Order: sequence, then C-alpha cells, then structure tokens
Amino acid sequence: MKINVVRSVLKANDAVAQTNRQRLSDARLLAVNVMSAPGSGKTTLLEKTIPALGPQFPCAVLVGDLQTTRDAERLVNLAAHTTQINTGGGCHLTATQVAEGLSGLPLADLAFLFIENVGNMVCPAAFDLGEHVRVALLSMPEGDDKVAKYPTLFQAANVILLTKVDLRGVLDYQIGRVRDDLARINTRAPLIEFSARNGQGLESWLEWLHAQRRQRVGAARDTQVRRETLEAGAR
Amino acid sequence: MKINVVRSVLKANDAVAQTNRQRLSDARLLAVNVMSAPGSGKTTLLEKTIPALGPQFPCAVLVGDLQTTRDAERLVNLAAHTTQINTGGGCHLTATQVAEGLSGLPLADLAFLFIENVGNMVCPAAFDLGEHVRVALLSMPEGDDKVAKYPTLFQAANVILLTKVDLRGVLDYQIGRVRDDLARINTRAPLIEFSARNGQGLESWLEWLHAQRRQRVGAARDTQVRRETLEAGAR
Repeated sequence: MKINVVRSVLKANDAVAQTNRQRLSDARLLAVNVMSAPGSGKTTLLEKTIPALGPQFPCAVLVGDLQTTRDAERLVNLAAHTTQINTGGGCHLTATQVAEGLSGLPLADLAFLFIENVGNMVCPAAFDLGEHVRVALLSMPEGDDKVAKYPTLFQAANVILLTKVDLRGVLDYQIGRVRDDLARINTRAPLIEFSARNGQGLESWLEWLHAQRRQRVGAARDTQVRRETLEAGAR
Repeated sequence: MKINVVRSVLKANDAVAQTNRQRLSDARLLAVNVMSAPGSGKTTLLEKTIPALGPQFPCAVLVGDLQTTRDAERLVNLAAHTTQINTGGGCHLTATQVAEGLSGLPLADLAFLFIENVGNMVCPAAFDLGEHVRVALLSMPEGDDKVAKYPTLFQAANVILLTKVDLRGVLDYQIGRVRDDLARINTRAPLIEFSARNGQGLESWLEWLHAQRRQRVGAARDTQVRRETLEAGAR
C-alpha cells in the first residue's frame, strides 16, 4: 500500500518531467539540476557561473528552498530571470513546481536554465524535474566518505563538483577515497575540483556546460547566431 | 488524499515513539536524537563525547545511514553497544526502526542512548523517535544562512552545536547572523560553539548532557549509585 502510493507519486512526477524536458529541448535550452547537501555551495557556484558565461548566454534560475528568498536575492542581479520556489516543508523540488516556474520564462531567449534544488543529499535524487543533466556538489569540509554513504545522488550525476577545495590545506581529506568510491558507482561523470574563492575548476566546468548544451540540445549553431547577433548589436 | 497518507504515517510513528520514550525513561536512560546535514560532524561529536563521558556512563549508539556501516565502525570500540540501521533509501530514521534497535540493548545498564540520524536537514525533524532531547548540528563551513533556510530542524532542537569552529579563521562567517535567526525561532536552546579538533565547547556540551539526564529522567541518584559501585569494584 505504502509502496503503491510512493510509486504513483513518482510516476505522475515523471510524466510532468518528460513534458518539461520536451519544452526545454524545443527551446534549445540546457536545463541543469544542481543538487547537494545544504551549504555545499550551489548558490555560490551559480554566482560564479552566470557572469562567466556572459551575456551571450542568458540564464534563468529556479531556486528551491523550504522558505526564505535568500538564495534568489543573491542571484537576481546576475541571471536574466530568477524565480524562488518555496516548498513549504518539502525536501525536494518536483516536476510540477518546475513546470510552474517555466510558465513565466521566455524560454526561446535563454541558453541555460539552472534549477537549484533544495539542499539535501537524499530526496532530490529520486525526482526527475525534466532536466537534461544533473550536477552533484560535494563540499570538501563535508568529509571524504559521502559518496559511499549517499550513493543515490552521485550515481545519477552527469558531473560531480568537489567544492571548497581551497580549504584542502586545513582539512584532513583524502580525495583518493572519493575517487575509489566513485569508481564503484559512476565511471562516466567527471569529477571537477572547484573553488569559488580562487577560481580553480571554473574553466573546466564552463567547458563541460557548453559541451553538454551542444550535445544534448544541438545548440551550437544557435549559439553562433546568437553571438553574431550580439556582436552586430555592439558595433 | 496525499495529506491523509502522510498524516497517518506520522500518527503511527508518534505512537511507537511514545512507547520508546516510556521504555527509555523507565530505564533512566537519556535518549538523544542527533540531527544535521551530511558531514556536519555527528559521528565525530560522538567519537569525542563517549570517551569523555567515561565508563561510569555507558553509552549505546543507534546509527542511521542509507547504506554502509562506516559510521558504526568508527564508534564500535568506543560505545558499549553500537547498532547500524540502514534505511535503504530512506531519508530519516523512524520510531519503528529505533524500537527494533532498542530490543537488542540492555537498557537498564546504560546511561545515554545516542541516535545518530540520517544526514539531512529536512526530513528527520518531522519524525519523533522517542528521544528525550534533540541536538541539531550546524557546521561552520555550511554557511551562516542555514538556520533561516532550514528552520524546522532548529525550531525543534533542545541544543544547537555550531561545529568546526576551528575553521573560523579561514571562513567568512558571521555568527551574529546565526544568533539573529535563532532569536526568531528558538530562544530556549543554547548555542554551543564546538570544535572536535581543539576541544572547544566539549565541556559545555557534557555539562548540558548531564543536566538533561538529571532533569528528564531523574538520573542523579542512579548515577551516584552507579559511580559508587564502580569505585567499590575498582578498590
């Protein structure tokens, strides 16, 4: 009985997620679901990413939180569009919440949609939101045992960012443990060492994003056209 | 419909939790539900706490994790009894899982039961396990905005430990923000600044634990008797 309820919730969610993904693909917009524990640096990552992508790649952000608009406030002046989704007590975003968030966005004018999920290493991984790719953040101060202990999140990730690596000197952290644990559950996702403070890994992360956008939503030509249009406008 | 399902699950959980609490109180055993995000230092806190309490206060630990026995392995040589509860994919412990864990323990011989919940700032707070007190950990590298963003956990806490404060020098952290946010939602729980590395806060935390045990399970005399017995045995 309980399992049936859970399954039907997931099934209904997945149907909405498929519709979201189709809308996003039609708009040649790469949708990125950003997931991690609380305080691993999701909002900080976006604060660095959006300006680095530059105005030729307009970004929208949907920010999920239990309450408050603090994360959205940090991003509102950086992204072309920022929408805060408050889940009440909900421990993850749902495809329906994302569908509502999409309804207010000019999808055809955007290059990237970042969906910042609720800070949680467990629940968000079970819910497809209609994204094209999943990013899992793992913060160095959280300790080097988290991949083994919370495998669901890391199994389904397309890329893993090890954040706050500038703290390496003051932490007792064995990155080899993380690589060993990843080798067991996910061999296709690259692991990028990232520091918002000193810029380490930013270039690799941006290259990865652009490559995904080309591969998954065939956006290369579109970007070229967009860039030429912008350059023409600047002249 | 959905709300009814959730409510009945919570109601069933609460009934089991009440039974757990009665069993624990009858044994004059203080049960402590330890909750936080992944990697905030729950296991490390117990690694420091249990030896510091000393053999006159025997401890048992129930450790909740999605999978692996890594946390239990760290505690097995410190606590009198250590039980790992693997939740499968479950994002929190339930009162029924705790009841099963209790069935294997010699409750009358113990002074403290620590229940280390699944690392998650959202879901565990909704489930009473039958504990007497709730401890919320908040790690300094997670950032100073977490109380406002995840209020459920901190509202229901009896004490809040701000962990990894030895990293203060390398982080941009405003403890005033945390105190302001706590003042809005929970004025009764003390905030203890804690570092497992340099021992800061350990004494305050131990004093708090002993005071709670005296107040909530009337354990003062019991402890005295226990100590006298141990001393007699040592002579």
